[in-house]
Amino acid sequence: MADQISILGIAGSLRKDSYNKSAVRAAQQLCPDGAKIEIYDLAGLPLFNQDEEKNPTPKVTDFKQKIRAAHDILISTAEYNYGMPGVLKNAIDCASRPYGDSAWNGKPIAIMSAAMGTAGGLRAQYQLRQCFVFLNLEAVVQPEVAIAAAHQRFDDKGNLTDETSKKMIAQLLQNLIYKVRLMRQPVKAAA
Amino acid sequence: MADQISILGIAGSLRKDSYNKSAVRAAQQLCPDGAKIEIYDLAGLPLFNQDEEKNPTPKVTDFKQKIRAAHDILISTAEYNYGMPGVLKNAIDCASRPYGDSAWNGKPIAIMSAAMGTAGGLRAQYQLRQCFVFLNLEAVVQPEVAIAAAHQRFDDKGNLTDETSKKMIAQLLQNLIYKVRLMRQPVKAAA
Amino acid sequence: MADQISILGIAGSLRKDSYNKSAVRAAQQLCPDGAKIEIYDLAGLPLFNQDEEKNPTPKVTDFKQKIRAAHDILISTAEYNYGMPGVLKNAIDCASRPYGDSAWNGKPIAIMSAAMGTAGGLRAQYQLRQCFVFLNLEAVVQPEVAIAAAHQRFDDKGNLTDETSKKMIAQLLQNLIYKVRLMRQPVKAAA
Amino acid sequence: MADQISILGIAGSLRKDSYNKSAVRAAQQLCPDGAKIEIYDLAGLPLFNQDEEKNPTPKVTDFKQKIRAAHDILISTAEYNYGMPGVLKNAIDCASRPYGDSAWNGKPIAIMSAAMGTAGGLRAQYQLRQCFVFLNLEAVVQPEVAIAAAHQRFDDKGNLTDETSKKMIAQLLQNLIYKVRLMRQPVKAAA
Repeated sequence: MADQISILGIAGSLRKDSYNKSAVRAAQQLCPDGAKIEIYDLAGLPLFNQDEEKNPTPKVTDFKQKIRAAHDILISTAEYNYGMPGVLKNAIDCASRPYGDSAWNGKPIAIMSAAMGTAGGLRAQYQLRQCFVFLNLEAVVQPEVAIAAAHQRFDDKGNLTDETSKKMIAQLLQNLIYKVRLMRQPVKAAA
Repeated sequence: MADQISILGIAGSLRKDSYNKSAVRAAQQLCPDGAKIEIYDLAGLPLFNQDEEKNPTPKVTDFKQKIRAAHDILISTAEYNYGMPGVLKNAIDCASRPYGDSAWNGKPIAIMSAAMGTAGGLRAQYQLRQCFVFLNLEAVVQPEVAIAAAHQRFDDKGNLTDETSKKMIAQLLQNLIYKVRLMRQPVKAAA
Repeated sequence: MADQISILGIAGSLRKDSYNKSAVRAAQQLCPDGAKIEIYDLAGLPLFNQDEEKNPTPKVTDFKQKIRAAHDILISTAEYNYGMPGVLKNAIDCASRPYGDSAWNGKPIAIMSAAMGTAGGLRAQYQLRQCFVFLNLEAVVQPEVAIAAAHQRFDDKGNLTDETSKKMIAQLLQNLIYKVRLMRQPVKAAA
Repeated sequence: MADQISILGIAGSLRKDSYNKSAVRAAQQLCPDGAKIEIYDLAGLPLFNQDEEKNPTPKVTDFKQKIRAAHDILISTAEYNYGMPGVLKNAIDCASRPYGDSAWNGKPIAIMSAAMGTAGGLRAQYQLRQCFVFLNLEAVVQPEVAIAAAHQRFDDKGNLTDETSKKMIAQLLQNLIYKVRLMRQPVKAAA
């Protein structure tokens, strides 16, 4: 369908049973009709080295193609040491280079986070938002989905069981899709 | 004219010869046809005290009305002590309360800064952007206008003389106005 | 007693029943022997205007004297709109000027926060820490005392009833006092 | 010599001709008598995966040992996409785990940055400082060494040629060493 919105879903953690991988899967299930989330696994990306940015590995090339092919992006970030995981920032760096060939430019994006602590990973979210100013990513403003005490919100199989979190993710996706549709429209000039 | 865009311009400093007051005046002159910047002076706002938020001073009431009447907001912030001036944050706080009656909610906004140092006030800009997540303000992402070495970019009368800065402000305003027009359009539902 | 450590306690809120005022009072009661917290009320400080920084109001002069007379500082900050209250940042700005005459320079300082939300005001704490880099304030690193769900941790009279928070404040004060004692010692040169 | 201070110098970039590698080498040459900087190359560290944190690679084990053996740390960080490089954050994450076995705990640390832009990498520095709150790293407060327009401050062979930057780095090292000596002293109890 021409109007189908394609969202690339990225979890900012390599851990197999990562709460953020689970959160992206939950978003996949909560995704409204007319949009679809494809999950991308960051495993296999190299550590970014500017000397090699013009000879990207196949994984980097693939990651950039997937970002470009998507209408928009959904990131669910872990929080390590009061910041964004190096794994996630490195992926962002990989896809942002070489200069002038960033895959991120101009995309709508939504962010969320899950963590065991009471702040739910929000410290990482503000660092993401700061990057977006450079990367020219159009972030959804609200709702701020930061799933605190994550070990109590997912069951043993990684299913999100918390209804409040589900509603917030559904709202975040709705706002993301609205933003995509809005940005794809031509703007009428002033009469 | 029905399509005229009204922008409320706010300088985050009380100093008479503030570079940021000058920057807002420069923006006023650079404002494209179809939009107009009205400058609002923060002087006279009280220090925010939640106990009195339901009995706002006339100045607070006026400030909130002006924000609400505008289509969008332009803030040029000074940087004090590596952060947003207290004067500016206090104004933001005043207009954000009582809970549920914030004047900021949903507005498009553009930010810039001017400072004598080499960073041009950008530390204050990221603090502003963080507030906007709570306030549900839709900030223009780029360009990032941070006028460094401000004492060399304005003449003795406060006129902006730096051509690069002028072009960036003009582009910022154009992007702000585009955002306003975009957000005022109905979004077509998926077919 | 010569070795008595004097701490200036500041709540970053003007509200009469502010949780942060209560938190500073709790700290006063938890303060170990050999140290004493004097509480300073920010009410009455003017909004900072650089044009008038060389003619400070009596309140500004008094505030700077109190900061200078203290060995160290304890701030408990509210969080407004995902940032430091304008009221607190303005107080910091007032006492930091004129250039070269900051009252803050070189002081040891400890910070904490209280808020009704789940993050307990920590967003404001990082903004404070960023200011401290400019102000040359030596902040205690840990513990990070951010009293979340503050309405459940204080009783109706503003007494802190949560034992975990009490222990953390006591530890924070102990670390602050240790830092003061450490910094007041001469450093032995290498042999 | 018993009192020799050992500093582990880390550049937050993998690029061969990285300005930050050059900055750490410059610090090595500027290091005062009684202290010595050993440079550690982050190349070869794996991307952090919590599932494997209890089976660290030899490089991770070596990195943690080197951190522990040093009295203090010097980091010079690049800035990618308005933040800390993923490469650096990932290294910090690697050495911080498993929980309870962080190599960073309690170390004095100094940070600097170099970048081609006018802000000299300072956005990355504040993200580092925020991590340090969690990691319990005691960061030197001033001077803030952010080498802007780095391509003009180093010669073709990577030698720092800018005298102001040299003086600031020398002062930063002096303050770092002072902090180490101070923290290693016993604190006299109040009389």
